[in-house]
Amino acid sequence: MRLSAEQLRQFDEQGYLFFPGCFSEDEVALLRSEADGIFRSNRKEVWREKTGAPRTAFASHTYNEAFRLMAHHPRLVEPLMQLFGEGVYVHQFKINAKAAFEGDVWQWHQDYGTWARDDGMPQPRAMNISIFLDEVLPINGPLMFIPRSHKYGTLAAAHDKSTTSYPLWTLDPETVTRLCAEAEAATGHGIVAPTGKPGSVLMFHGNLVHASPPNITPYPRKIVYVTFCACSNHITKFTRAEWIAHRDFTPIAPVSDDALAEYARAHRVAAE
Amino acid sequence: MRLSAEQLRQFDEQGYLFFPGCFSEDEVALLRSEADGIFRSNRKEVWREKTGAPRTAFASHTYNEAFRLMAHHPRLVEPLMQLFGEGVYVHQFKINAKAAFEGDVWQWHQDYGTWARDDGMPQPRAMNISIFLDEVLPINGPLMFIPRSHKYGTLAAAHDKSTTSYPLWTLDPETVTRLCAEAEAATGHGIVAPTGKPGSVLMFHGNLVHASPPNITPYPRKIVYVTFCACSNHITKFTRAEWIAHRDFTPIAPVSDDALAEYARAHRVAAE
Repeated sequence: MRLSAEQLRQFDEQGYLFFPGCFSEDEVALLRSEADGIFRSNRKEVWREKTGAPRTAFASHTYNEAFRLMAHHPRLVEPLMQLFGEGVYVHQFKINAKAAFEGDVWQWHQDYGTWARDDGMPQPRAMNISIFLDEVLPINGPLMFIPRSHKYGTLAAAHDKSTTSYPLWTLDPETVTRLCAEAEAATGHGIVAPTGKPGSVLMFHGNLVHASPPNITPYPRKIVYVTFCACSNHITKFTRAEWIAHRDFTPIAPVSDDALAEYARAHRVAAE
Repeated sequence: MRLSAEQLRQFDEQGYLFFPGCFSEDEVALLRSEADGIFRSNRKEVWREKTGAPRTAFASHTYNEAFRLMAHHPRLVEPLMQLFGEGVYVHQFKINAKAAFEGDVWQWHQDYGTWARDDGMPQPRAMNISIFLDEVLPINGPLMFIPRSHKYGTLAAAHDKSTTSYPLWTLDPETVTRLCAEAEAATGHGIVAPTGKPGSVLMFHGNLVHASPPNITPYPRKIVYVTFCACSNHITKFTRAEWIAHRDFTPIAPVSDDALAEYARAHRVAAE
């Protein structure tokens, strides 16, 4: 998959791109059921909310074949290689559960803020790409972006260790208010919350300010986040566990475009 | 304002009616600024979130002229008189702030559950009618309804005194999940979240199950809730403060349709 000139312009302007229906329901159904199995497991890579509900499962691509194929998928890897002009590696891989009734807030933050401060990543030449495993609705805790906020570089942040079970460098309300007002003036929208069917994909700049509200509905909202980093921009500080901030900087060799579909088909046959 | 046969049918089917733009921006602008003043005050009727941000201001119609006119407004009072076939009185009046960044969750509940259990209200012949003072967006903590859930009568509930600063009789996740599945089968939507400009009005059955998520955006979402009760159905237990569950059961005499607009005009002139 290659980004068009128009997509590149839009990404530069807004800080994100949305691809509804990027993966088929067949491809996603398998990942969804594998994710449910992972969340039920007792692995150390599965973090939980204060209530005990699953919050985040790290590094599933290292031990689960379906997620390994996802992390190597050309629909994700190739646009990033195109943008960075070089090979990319997986810096972080997580499935965020945002469980029905219990999925808690992710406060306003920039991803690169954490990668720089905690992992010594030299530049914001890394990016999250997210794949919806469930339908993301306006009501079940969608990701919210402040358009154009990636243009401000890395903003001052405080280390929030108390709000949720996951420590995060978060922005203060005054900064968020200012960024929303500026986004509204420039684009007509202070905040956007792309929603869509399972299989939709969101790509967003490492400095794009985002958050997601709690999920108080019966509809779970699982999203996979793969952080791809340009190989030459690999991290330099190893303060977090290897399965949170990976240390294998080998460029990813993408699998074929139908690899995940084939695996899903074989898996379905085997399960019958 | 009289409800049409189609509106009455829709209300019976879905449990709610939505009237976008029921009040003009001129009428609402004054109420919004008065509400901000009330939230800044130290009155005992103003309840706060655990963070100190305003959550709910009770009984403002008893001491503020603009809100008194709202509680007597024919666009609110007449449809309720029509539905109940008799005069109505104000059982409760509150402005819910859902403040920017700090407005907390209201868990899934039925209003009549509280009126019955706490106030000894004989029948669900009472109803909340809500007036948007700010724009309600999908992202700033809109009210969420489960359509048709008013058809199930008063459901079992537990008294939640810990989640937020306001005690509430709330439903368990299994009940909410079941109601959403049944709503989805019957109407195509498990949950609806009507959004719209300031001045929009929502009328909903006392047994309609609803909730609202926290507001983590910079956009405040103030909504006035007036609970009108059929006079013959007045409460019989006086366990809550008089300014939370009122004890004046005199039928409301509606003001004229332009009373609020006139007051807003005069107030604006006086302020200049």
